[in-house]
Amino acid sequence: MIIQLQPSISASEKDIILTRIKSLEYKATPVTTQRGSYLVAIGKKEFDIRQLGHLKGIADIHRVSDDYKLVSRKWKVNHTQIDLGEGVVVGNGSLSIMAGPCSIEHEDQVQNTIDHLVRNNVRMMRGGVFKPRSSPYAFRGLGVEGLKMWYALARKAGIKIVSEVMQVSQIAEMYDYVDVFQVGARNTQNFNLLDELGKVDKAVMIKRGISGTIEELLYSAEYVFSAGNEKLLLCERGIRTYERASRNTMDVNAIPILKEKTHLPVIADPSHGIGIRDYVEPVALAAVMAGADGVIYETHEKPEEAASDGQQTLDFDESTQLITRMRKAFDLLQQF
Amino acid sequence: MIIQLQPSISASEKDIILTRIKSLEYKATPVTTQRGSYLVAIGKKEFDIRQLGHLKGIADIHRVSDDYKLVSRKWKVNHTQIDLGEGVVVGNGSLSIMAGPCSIEHEDQVQNTIDHLVRNNVRMMRGGVFKPRSSPYAFRGLGVEGLKMWYALARKAGIKIVSEVMQVSQIAEMYDYVDVFQVGARNTQNFNLLDELGKVDKAVMIKRGISGTIEELLYSAEYVFSAGNEKLLLCERGIRTYERASRNTMDVNAIPILKEKTHLPVIADPSHGIGIRDYVEPVALAAVMAGADGVIYETHEKPEEAASDGQQTLDFDESTQLITRMRKAFDLLQQF
Amino acid sequence: MIIQLQPSISASEKDIILTRIKSLEYKATPVTTQRGSYLVAIGKKEFDIRQLGHLKGIADIHRVSDDYKLVSRKWKVNHTQIDLGEGVVVGNGSLSIMAGPCSIEHEDQVQNTIDHLVRNNVRMMRGGVFKPRSSPYAFRGLGVEGLKMWYALARKAGIKIVSEVMQVSQIAEMYDYVDVFQVGARNTQNFNLLDELGKVDKAVMIKRGISGTIEELLYSAEYVFSAGNEKLLLCERGIRTYERASRNTMDVNAIPILKEKTHLPVIADPSHGIGIRDYVEPVALAAVMAGADGVIYETHEKPEEAASDGQQTLDFDESTQLITRMRKAFDLLQQF
Amino acid sequence: MIIQLQPSISASEKDIILTRIKSLEYKATPVTTQRGSYLVAIGKKEFDIRQLGHLKGIADIHRVSDDYKLVSRKWKVNHTQIDLGEGVVVGNGSLSIMAGPCSIEHEDQVQNTIDHLVRNNVRMMRGGVFKPRSSPYAFRGLGVEGLKMWYALARKAGIKIVSEVMQVSQIAEMYDYVDVFQVGARNTQNFNLLDELGKVDKAVMIKRGISGTIEELLYSAEYVFSAGNEKLLLCERGIRTYERASRNTMDVNAIPILKEKTHLPVIADPSHGIGIRDYVEPVALAAVMAGADGVIYETHEKPEEAASDGQQTLDFDESTQLITRMRKAFDLLQQF
Repeated sequence: MIIQLQPSISASEKDIILTRIKSLEYKATPVTTQRGSYLVAIGKKEFDIRQLGHLKGIADIHRVSDDYKLVSRKWKVNHTQIDLGEGVVVGNGSLSIMAGPCSIEHEDQVQNTIDHLVRNNVRMMRGGVFKPRSSPYAFRGLGVEGLKMWYALARKAGIKIVSEVMQVSQIAEMYDYVDVFQVGARNTQNFNLLDELGKVDKAVMIKRGISGTIEELLYSAEYVFSAGNEKLLLCERGIRTYERASRNTMDVNAIPILKEKTHLPVIADPSHGIGIRDYVEPVALAAVMAGADGVIYETHEKPEEAASDGQQTLDFDESTQLITRMRKAFDLLQQF
Repeated sequence: MIIQLQPSISASEKDIILTRIKSLEYKATPVTTQRGSYLVAIGKKEFDIRQLGHLKGIADIHRVSDDYKLVSRKWKVNHTQIDLGEGVVVGNGSLSIMAGPCSIEHEDQVQNTIDHLVRNNVRMMRGGVFKPRSSPYAFRGLGVEGLKMWYALARKAGIKIVSEVMQVSQIAEMYDYVDVFQVGARNTQNFNLLDELGKVDKAVMIKRGISGTIEELLYSAEYVFSAGNEKLLLCERGIRTYERASRNTMDVNAIPILKEKTHLPVIADPSHGIGIRDYVEPVALAAVMAGADGVIYETHEKPEEAASDGQQTLDFDESTQLITRMRKAFDLLQQF
Repeated sequence: MIIQLQPSISASEKDIILTRIKSLEYKATPVTTQRGSYLVAIGKKEFDIRQLGHLKGIADIHRVSDDYKLVSRKWKVNHTQIDLGEGVVVGNGSLSIMAGPCSIEHEDQVQNTIDHLVRNNVRMMRGGVFKPRSSPYAFRGLGVEGLKMWYALARKAGIKIVSEVMQVSQIAEMYDYVDVFQVGARNTQNFNLLDELGKVDKAVMIKRGISGTIEELLYSAEYVFSAGNEKLLLCERGIRTYERASRNTMDVNAIPILKEKTHLPVIADPSHGIGIRDYVEPVALAAVMAGADGVIYETHEKPEEAASDGQQTLDFDESTQLITRMRKAFDLLQQF
Repeated sequence: MIIQLQPSISASEKDIILTRIKSLEYKATPVTTQRGSYLVAIGKKEFDIRQLGHLKGIADIHRVSDDYKLVSRKWKVNHTQIDLGEGVVVGNGSLSIMAGPCSIEHEDQVQNTIDHLVRNNVRMMRGGVFKPRSSPYAFRGLGVEGLKMWYALARKAGIKIVSEVMQVSQIAEMYDYVDVFQVGARNTQNFNLLDELGKVDKAVMIKRGISGTIEELLYSAEYVFSAGNEKLLLCERGIRTYERASRNTMDVNAIPILKEKTHLPVIADPSHGIGIRDYVEPVALAAVMAGADGVIYETHEKPEEAASDGQQTLDFDESTQLITRMRKAFDLLQQF
């Protein structure tokens, strides 16, 4: 049960509500986000909602039968929009395209990518400066210095930055230089990281776990939301299955299911979803047609020279073609 | 290695070729289909292809590094078209739509479905008369009598019939009344059934196994082809994964991968791929956009009264909308 | 609900029972096996069991809440024993060992294997004469002629034969020469084959599907049982997962779960369960300790020369050691 | 390639070695642990090992073809022992038993568990004070205060403490009160956490990821080792598969495979491996028989009242029986 509180609620009114909830054998968690104040009440007993509804300070009450609450569409039917500033909005009925290299490597690479994006009127750039790698001996990214360099170039071009945060201490380090904190597939259930990102007033995109369920992804979002941050995006990036012909199995089903279950925007990552450069385009088009609010993919001036993930990275010509085609597919879908 | 033989080859010429292949330490399997004669030669040694190429009776020789041979695009780059007669062709650059109920139930149901298809200019109807069911106590279908009834009605309307064959003895029973024998997901590796379907001159659509790999699907097709039947369609219908939010996980990746690896047409089954009525449309559109040659899905006048699979079955209004939208998506893709 | 009928029941008494069941809105399937006669009644309404219990001809009535009925331990608490004759019994509190090559190859191989088994006091030999192979070009087994040769040698030595049947037509061909028909992992849901094996009075061992659930395995057994054959064994042989370090993932959990859910004996196949020769022993010992009634594994005089599955096949020395150790582990477990 | 350095090596000798490695186009990572100094050199070119071997300061050189190096048995054939003090050693040929509740709840619970362990001569106790929970509204553990209380009671009884660390900041908080830091299944690839645990001189037990591969588990161990901490244990705790009859699928195969691939001790967790109280014993016995160095499982005085995981928790009688039986199974295995 989600109890939306009035902005003007007094401390004593809130206490009265909390006492009443307790007397109904419900456990209440107070949640204050940048956008509002809520009580998330969890319990088993059925009761007449009017026992609470007449209390002062309550704006609205919603029953939510899902175990995740604040991210559920059962209380918030309209889809959430995430405003990143300068006219860049995710979830507002336009297709959000986020493209860029797996790893930020050097200034030329960044500038060339930005130029490519600007030419195609793309406003969001992805790139890794902290890289989670299976082997401790692999390239682990340029770190915050790389991010600062990237930020300087991106700001000039009006490009928003999406980049992975791997641990709590990086949140403060990265804060001034990112527009969307990305939580990677290996950290989807790093609950401390999620808690801390809940205290930040920047957007957070949570990738589905390597073999995470759709429900677990929603719970992870609930962590961030209940800790105070409503600016959330979810990302389907393929799941681990027995099939070896592709790197992961893009779970295209997850897109309409998530769109039904949550009010948060859903982004698709076809680069990781299939992991093979030649097939990124059909999978990206499929994801758009399945209803994704946006697509994030890897592109690099010379994929074969990329520091990581070259095998699934598009060159700029392929990227340009993909952008054009995704927009046409998205436009068609809007007509339906 | 695939050695295409000339139609005019004599027995003694063939013997000479076989002897030469043996001397190269290759094992040759002669294959005669409705369309041609081949020797599939398997061995490890590298040799100069000219050692064979000058022999009489050989039309062409193709090296195929895949372990499956005759279904590989490495020797047959152009995609195969399957002509079902009366202008119904699969794989010819049009979108093949196959729709109908999970189970054939009674004459009214069949006639109403046919009328629905005709109104939408759809030429292929799916339906089960032999139903594989986990439980022996569940409805197992109307059998051949149901098929005959269906056939009588479908023929009048110019509708082609796609129906599942579960065992060898049913091939002869069904032969006169089907246009496409469907091999179900539980029979993908029923090799005896595949062998026997190889001797038939009707089209065969093989569904991917419940947790079959893409490679296993291609091997299963190789069984039918090498037994003599080239009229083959492959069908992606979702795979079994850990995710419980959908019945299966539609492997949209499989579509572009199969289109690259084989010359056979690829059909998508979104009804089983996601298993939830409300989401069949987005998954179907995604499959079309990923490059499928056709889509097979379940529709029923009253899904809630269907004898089986009602939870994933569209009603006729939903079906009509889906057909329209899939065609628009397919048209857009053709422009790319 | 399972209604056990008295052997002496008259046709009219049976009719009365069937009518009463129908009036309770249950659907009854009459089942006659070599061991008894039953009515399996399926319906939803709760009713007082005494409404049926007083009718003539009924020996006993059992409510079974599982969806599979006749194979459930909820009506038959004692574990089933399968008597193969000449003192060979599965499920009687001894450890059933079934060993032999993947494929029957030639007389010497068979005789040497038999000698090895006799030396170790093992009474059951496994071997394939019909081999399901992914590729149509691979060795498919010696067929019935191989089986006859094997039978002649095995009978002299008092060895029972376990061999895979792949299709309905092979049942009659193999009937005189096998003691246990094995249904392979690709045929677990070949329902026609299961139906026909239900009409046979020889034991049937059903392997779990390549990615079959435990419940599906029980349903497959229900097919055979409800078609008339109670002599059933179940076999856990590893399932398909994302892990690539082993051929399959031996699901050791399935052993205690099956022992709890069904009265049928449970056999473990560590050869396929892990697929790597060096690790067959620890996995076999684990399976015994988890409560398996028996173990089936592959052994060959010269594994490196085996026609198939050599990589997971033990030589005779390894096999001898394994037998000794499994028996010691089994003895220890009996003391608990 | 692992180059073991002599303790007496001088800085200039080390420089010479590093220069030579670089000239061979290898990349060297210096690693200093509590037990020794190494250079881990990664490259592709084959070269004569004597080009390095004669240099001063080198104790030994090992080629390691695996991608993980320091945890591989290819350079360190003997299994590692982890000495926790007061005579508690893991991996020394005895069976390490770690038992206790899922969550530390209160003093009585802890003392009763300790008494139970002492009665059974078990020296290691597991328990969670920081609990990773899918839902943000679930009980998250008592935190460090609970750990201190536990520590005070455990020390008196000579019991070693195994407890999960979820984030970097908890390492220092927990340091004085734990003997083994446990890395949970959701944090197996939390590389920052692994890096920091590499700087600690306390044992670390890494659980396999929820759907982690065996290889990924070894890489995660390589992170900790290469950051300086050799006191490592690995834990198989079941993997996520499609099967729903058990919480996870205990991958018993992983035990012999890990014992072959790494010199680190391998612990099995049957409580999570199957997740059903009644079946914990057979799975635990199976794991012992497959070669595990130890077993970790959940026990609670009153499982039905446990704050978490009650459905897979043994009561003390069941626990006592399990301990006795595991020891007998382990003894038998030692005789083989």
